[in-house]
Amino acid sequence: MVLFGPSLYGPLRHVSQFHKHAAGAELNFTVGLGRLGLRCGLITRVGRDEFGQYILACMRAEGIDTALVREEETHPTGVYFKEYRGLGDPRVYYYRRGSAASSMSPEDIDPECLNGARLIHLTGITPALSATCRETCLALLRLAEGLGIAVSFDPNIRLGTLHDVETARDSMMPFISRSHLLLLNEFECELLFGSSELAAIMDEVFDAGPRIVAVKMGSRGSLAAARSDRVIHFAEPFKTPRYVDPVGAGDGFDAGFVYGYLNNLPIDGCMRAGNLVGALATTVTGDYEGYPFLRDVAGAVASGGSEIRR
Amino acid sequence: MVLFGPSLYGPLRHVSQFHKHAAGAELNFTVGLGRLGLRCGLITRVGRDEFGQYILACMRAEGIDTALVREEETHPTGVYFKEYRGLGDPRVYYYRRGSAASSMSPEDIDPECLNGARLIHLTGITPALSATCRETCLALLRLAEGLGIAVSFDPNIRLGTLHDVETARDSMMPFISRSHLLLLNEFECELLFGSSELAAIMDEVFDAGPRIVAVKMGSRGSLAAARSDRVIHFAEPFKTPRYVDPVGAGDGFDAGFVYGYLNNLPIDGCMRAGNLVGALATTVTGDYEGYPFLRDVAGAVASGGSEIRR
Amino acid sequence: MVLFGPSLYGPLRHVSQFHKHAAGAELNFTVGLGRLGLRCGLITRVGRDEFGQYILACMRAEGIDTALVREEETHPTGVYFKEYRGLGDPRVYYYRRGSAASSMSPEDIDPECLNGARLIHLTGITPALSATCRETCLALLRLAEGLGIAVSFDPNIRLGTLHDVETARDSMMPFISRSHLLLLNEFECELLFGSSELAAIMDEVFDAGPRIVAVKMGSRGSLAAARSDRVIHFAEPFKTPRYVDPVGAGDGFDAGFVYGYLNNLPIDGCMRAGNLVGALATTVTGDYEGYPFLRDVAGAVASGGSEIRR
Amino acid sequence: MVLFGPSLYGPLRHVSQFHKHAAGAELNFTVGLGRLGLRCGLITRVGRDEFGQYILACMRAEGIDTALVREEETHPTGVYFKEYRGLGDPRVYYYRRGSAASSMSPEDIDPECLNGARLIHLTGITPALSATCRETCLALLRLAEGLGIAVSFDPNIRLGTLHDVETARDSMMPFISRSHLLLLNEFECELLFGSSELAAIMDEVFDAGPRIVAVKMGSRGSLAAARSDRVIHFAEPFKTPRYVDPVGAGDGFDAGFVYGYLNNLPIDGCMRAGNLVGALATTVTGDYEGYPFLRDVAGAVASGGSEIRR
Amino acid sequence: MVLFGPSLYGPLRHVSQFHKHAAGAELNFTVGLGRLGLRCGLITRVGRDEFGQYILACMRAEGIDTALVREEETHPTGVYFKEYRGLGDPRVYYYRRGSAASSMSPEDIDPECLNGARLIHLTGITPALSATCRETCLALLRLAEGLGIAVSFDPNIRLGTLHDVETARDSMMPFISRSHLLLLNEFECELLFGSSELAAIMDEVFDAGPRIVAVKMGSRGSLAAARSDRVIHFAEPFKTPRYVDPVGAGDGFDAGFVYGYLNNLPIDGCMRAGNLVGALATTVTGDYEGYPFLRDVAGAVASGGSEIRR
Amino acid sequence: MVLFGPSLYGPLRHVSQFHKHAAGAELNFTVGLGRLGLRCGLITRVGRDEFGQYILACMRAEGIDTALVREEETHPTGVYFKEYRGLGDPRVYYYRRGSAASSMSPEDIDPECLNGARLIHLTGITPALSATCRETCLALLRLAEGLGIAVSFDPNIRLGTLHDVETARDSMMPFISRSHLLLLNEFECELLFGSSELAAIMDEVFDAGPRIVAVKMGSRGSLAAARSDRVIHFAEPFKTPRYVDPVGAGDGFDAGFVYGYLNNLPIDGCMRAGNLVGALATTVTGDYEGYPFLRDVAGAVASGGSEIRR
Repeated sequence: MVLFGPSLYGPLRHVSQFHKHAAGAELNFTVGLGRLGLRCGLITRVGRDEFGQYILACMRAEGIDTALVREEETHPTGVYFKEYRGLGDPRVYYYRRGSAASSMSPEDIDPECLNGARLIHLTGITPALSATCRETCLALLRLAEGLGIAVSFDPNIRLGTLHDVETARDSMMPFISRSHLLLLNEFECELLFGSSELAAIMDEVFDAGPRIVAVKMGSRGSLAAARSDRVIHFAEPFKTPRYVDPVGAGDGFDAGFVYGYLNNLPIDGCMRAGNLVGALATTVTGDYEGYPFLRDVAGAVASGGSEIRR
Repeated sequence: MVLFGPSLYGPLRHVSQFHKHAAGAELNFTVGLGRLGLRCGLITRVGRDEFGQYILACMRAEGIDTALVREEETHPTGVYFKEYRGLGDPRVYYYRRGSAASSMSPEDIDPECLNGARLIHLTGITPALSATCRETCLALLRLAEGLGIAVSFDPNIRLGTLHDVETARDSMMPFISRSHLLLLNEFECELLFGSSELAAIMDEVFDAGPRIVAVKMGSRGSLAAARSDRVIHFAEPFKTPRYVDPVGAGDGFDAGFVYGYLNNLPIDGCMRAGNLVGALATTVTGDYEGYPFLRDVAGAVASGGSEIRR
Repeated sequence: MVLFGPSLYGPLRHVSQFHKHAAGAELNFTVGLGRLGLRCGLITRVGRDEFGQYILACMRAEGIDTALVREEETHPTGVYFKEYRGLGDPRVYYYRRGSAASSMSPEDIDPECLNGARLIHLTGITPALSATCRETCLALLRLAEGLGIAVSFDPNIRLGTLHDVETARDSMMPFISRSHLLLLNEFECELLFGSSELAAIMDEVFDAGPRIVAVKMGSRGSLAAARSDRVIHFAEPFKTPRYVDPVGAGDGFDAGFVYGYLNNLPIDGCMRAGNLVGALATTVTGDYEGYPFLRDVAGAVASGGSEIRR
Repeated sequence: MVLFGPSLYGPLRHVSQFHKHAAGAELNFTVGLGRLGLRCGLITRVGRDEFGQYILACMRAEGIDTALVREEETHPTGVYFKEYRGLGDPRVYYYRRGSAASSMSPEDIDPECLNGARLIHLTGITPALSATCRETCLALLRLAEGLGIAVSFDPNIRLGTLHDVETARDSMMPFISRSHLLLLNEFECELLFGSSELAAIMDEVFDAGPRIVAVKMGSRGSLAAARSDRVIHFAEPFKTPRYVDPVGAGDGFDAGFVYGYLNNLPIDGCMRAGNLVGALATTVTGDYEGYPFLRDVAGAVASGGSEIRR
Repeated sequence: MVLFGPSLYGPLRHVSQFHKHAAGAELNFTVGLGRLGLRCGLITRVGRDEFGQYILACMRAEGIDTALVREEETHPTGVYFKEYRGLGDPRVYYYRRGSAASSMSPEDIDPECLNGARLIHLTGITPALSATCRETCLALLRLAEGLGIAVSFDPNIRLGTLHDVETARDSMMPFISRSHLLLLNEFECELLFGSSELAAIMDEVFDAGPRIVAVKMGSRGSLAAARSDRVIHFAEPFKTPRYVDPVGAGDGFDAGFVYGYLNNLPIDGCMRAGNLVGALATTVTGDYEGYPFLRDVAGAVASGGSEIRR
Repeated sequence: MVLFGPSLYGPLRHVSQFHKHAAGAELNFTVGLGRLGLRCGLITRVGRDEFGQYILACMRAEGIDTALVREEETHPTGVYFKEYRGLGDPRVYYYRRGSAASSMSPEDIDPECLNGARLIHLTGITPALSATCRETCLALLRLAEGLGIAVSFDPNIRLGTLHDVETARDSMMPFISRSHLLLLNEFECELLFGSSELAAIMDEVFDAGPRIVAVKMGSRGSLAAARSDRVIHFAEPFKTPRYVDPVGAGDGFDAGFVYGYLNNLPIDGCMRAGNLVGALATTVTGDYEGYPFLRDVAGAVASGGSEIRR
């Protein structure tokens, strides 16, 4: 999606200038992993319009494989606007109903597309876009299962887009149950499992399917546990020289955590890499621009995170 | 709708800053008339969001009656983006599928809403947004007919949004046939009546219903004729100190022409007032910001336009 | 007034871009109350110029009654510039000598204008603008007294505009003595009553006339007391996700406090509502853009403020 | 003065960003001459505020002597705003009533201040600011007369600031009658001498006092004549690659013409130098930023202008 | 290179904001061809810095092969600044002495790098950057000769960077003599061959080596001739809705002309395609952003250019 | 140098707008002292280009003597770009290899140029630019020694520009050994003397030559000692209402400290003045724009700093 960030704080009615960024949970995640040196691709659709070209350009700039991105003639590329409020986190205004991404369908999935892949990442956003999107995600899951590819899942539930808790839970469970890694925040813990405390819900989570669960707690760091030993680990937040806005931090955490997982870091290393990427996201106005490049944080992430606390 | 204008010329993929404006054919028309001192209202829906509030604020700023504007909870306010190209006129990218305006329905029409009105203005855009929008427009037409209120109509067909000529023509004819004033450009003449020459189509137009027809020819001025005498009048274009972009000029012409009509100016005066408002629209980047205020052009329009050529 | 905010921190000689806002103590107050759902009007003058039209548009956008705003042909709308300094609060540069507002005179007051009003709010700024402004304010006070309408007063003394303490005190006392609500900050307490401690000056304040006094302490919250029991209440400051600039916070507090008063909230509720509105003002660069809308804080203010601490 | 130029074309109510420039007829003139290599100073007052410091910085940047500029504690530096309209030339909104410049008085004139000077330039703006400004200008004239220093005068009458033709004429005549060079536009010819045709008014002009008169005709070039032979010369306009706005062109013409006069160019050379400087002013948004530097146009102006037509 | 374009017209000392673009003759050419659907790569070096990453991102965005672009640790990516003047074309200020591109050396040329290529394009800029750059270009020429690959050459001599005509001519001739296509402007014709008239120099040009020569005449269109028949063809300029700045037009012409050549268009078609691409470059502030995409001009260029005059 | 500051936080590849500032260690220092009322000059070279004119204009604006600044025809004015990162301090990208400043040579030093001077200030940056720069600095040192003029020195070593510790130390020692005042930060203490603790290195420092040493510790304040008593003084940091970026703080400290030294303040006063100027530098985006003016901090610095803690 294309994100338009405001030039001023406060209600958008008063804002006259907006700055264009590329953004969106899945794109963010891919950029985060790509910057850390992993080869990634994205399966999605963009409009055959200037904003679609912009998204493709941003992906190519980051070295992301665009072979599976389809240009859609009759649906536009989705856009959204960010608003900085005096109360709570930024609010976002979406224009993605009927967007190209929402028109994705199972036929977009080439059976070869996961050949050689080690992990697929899904969020709860895509299946919620449309019925065909949901089918596409489920088809991907089945394909991954068949190939023995690991799955990471982030429910990515936004308060503003949530209509009904029961429905949300029901629609998420098929994805959660087939995930190896479940990456969520406290609000989602509460919503899906009835408590924001990892200790309280860990057993239920592991019974549902995932082998590893990580809980993102924003400026308070993160918690995680593996089904194998059910020990809860805590990783301190990464300190940054400024805090601009939290959007993109959750996706960045996912990317850092998955980076660690694919590099066989211990769970603490995964968490620290997650905290690092997530924290850096908060130092800029865009979603992913602040994510680190491997050359800048190589020592930190290679060491299982022990060097990244400075 | 909310219009986002680019800070640079060229493809939007390269543009990083956008400037917010209020715009849209019906809004433009109403602003144009309001600035010339006529009391106007608009029947539409906006989203219950910041952009909806912005549209309402702009309308109130211009003194337009907002009593018939409904705030819609579940549909967002439509937005669009403008692109300056090296080839031809600016291109626009719409996000109005599923917008608040497209959810308008006949129940929005209070039977009293036209009491005291002297004219209603419709464009071809609104009936094309959705089936309920079309019904709403037709219901308004019937209400106007019952009250003996004049109707002006502008087909406002954009090449980009046109799918099929036959359908377009069929869907426009019910509106054209009930209009007193038909205001269109050469492209629309060609599309709807088979020729861009007023002389060639005038009889067919008048047979269809309208009593007055005006053809907007951009920088070449305008033509118009009345059914009563079928004489074709030509009005020279109004010269401005700069030309920025043509968007909003057509709606401005409509406003100026209708202003003249409601003030009983002769047809030449209507045309000159139309040319004036339309030309001033082209001197700014937004749609309607350049429309004149009565205090600046009072002599010109009062004199039937004879003073406005400077 | 029209406020021009700088695009960069530091001395204005180095700033090349400025952003236009509407502002001014009385306008701010009215916007604050209007956003909380109360019907308000403003008695003032603006120039018959573009900035005057802008102020009127902003007022109409906020739903403020502009019937009593007069357009003045020969005096321009006042403007001012804000400067962010490294030492202390922002500095402001006023251009309001000879402004339209300063030309206000008692004849602007329609004897019917307060019919139906429940409260009038005055600040020390207006009477200081010119002799006719002072007379206008006194005339309003008399009208309010005659109609039994409550008066709230904020001395709003700016260090930069203060020439002589004795004169300032003398000119403020007639307003203070007829106010029901006296809303001031510590600096003004010191200047007018000789101490910045509410406990030390409360008796003198109540002897002078007011029934309720509130002392704004910025980031340290607020104090208030009522003549009826002379108990000093303290309300903690409202926490916000960012702090941009304090201008507009005092006026916002006044609006929130008066909102509470007119809704019969207990004094603590008035203070919390004041703290809320004032705090939100500090999250944006303009004066009033950050003030809350009732739909966002309804629970908070309705509950006497007990819910607004999040 | 400090000029705030809009970021968008159209009514200022719609403009949210403004760009700061230094400007003002006398400053412009001095910059124009200074860039052509002549040593200049300015006698004026600025406020003891950031905008005054900015004006001083701009003057020093251009190498203008600021020794005679006084910083005024109690009056602010004047500012104005420019508006690009669809009808006619830009409109300006002044805030100079009560400005530092308007507080200038004869005591600002050090009797030594003109020692070594070859010419003083006055415009009709300064004497119109206030009675003390007028006295200051007259005192300067007397001082110049005593020292045998040439005087150039530009009435610089703006339609917007003109109240009454008779008064304007009376107030200008003492300056015109003592000028060696009278530099004015067609509108001013008409207003002061009853015709915009130089041929028609030349005798009256020369009888009044001036030895040389030049008439600026904007994009149509300029005319000039000397009392000695009363031959009317015409100089074609200088062509530029773009036209942005005319403000500053008249002052630039004056600077170029006076440059030629002080370098003993023939009258055609003076006119061409004037046309050159004036034309370049129109290629930028600020008043004087476009004026040429000697190194860029040295051949042109040294040759009596014959090389500058490219 | 990275280009910083000013936010205002006029001398850069007065400009406070700059906008970043990617640019440079060779990059422009490659973008131009790539947008018309041809597969292209660039052999160059960029710094291992953010601006180098930006250039790479822009190349990838346009689908240009970056395999032969080397990241240079110790030399920065070159930058330059553009200035809009009142006299003549924009002026540019280069920072490319010691830039990464200037450190290019023959070892950068992989002997396989031209396999499959149909044409290589060189400009006079690269060999002038440094001795190693010159050697690199000559090595490429030899490689192309060995493989029978066509060469196009644009001397691209800028007045500001020219030190001595004799040297310039001597250094260009080895490239001209081995080119199939020589693409140059009138100034370069004059400088290299002694006349700006193609008729006068055609024989000398063809004797030197090239088989086709095209002369770019800016807004007056272009001329071209082939050695086979020595007939001079003229192609009218392509009209655009606005003219912003000429930088990038020459490179665009080259791209369009070479596009035609590689698609076996007749010489008139090559010229029209060149005029089209060059003209569109002038409609934007950046160098290449305005170049057309095949989908927008396919009909025009496929038809040998006969459709592109609208 | 000319500094281009980004309009957004994050990697420069994503930043599209930049803001021009004047900056550079020596310029900053001179501005700092000049604003505190001391007469200063700078010996350097700028290019004969627009950026050179800009630097000269900024110097003149601050009242700095530019008589010893030479305009260099064949080398451009140096520029650099600032980047705000999520990890650590801002990064800078220099374009000063081959810049005008780097071409400075001993012949630039007029033997009279230090007549009347009380102190010369050198940084480690200039001698590192080129061999001729180094010779120039050494020549100045000798001239100062001959005239008995005090020398202050700031090694100003940037991690990014440091190649080899041993070389850096060797090249700095001749300057350190002849300085009266040595002003450095903890990193430089470590690098040059083996420890960041003043207590540990003080004796070695004093043995090397300086009579006073001050250690800048950023947000933790500063330490200083005099050779006469070797007592270590600590001065608390000066608190500011915001923190934007640290660049310019070290130079500002130097200016404040030297101001105190030249006004015979006790060492604590020098440190507090240094902390004050340094802290204010951090409140703006440019390097020196935030430095205080004497009129704003006169009481503070005159009192030996005891009043500046507010």
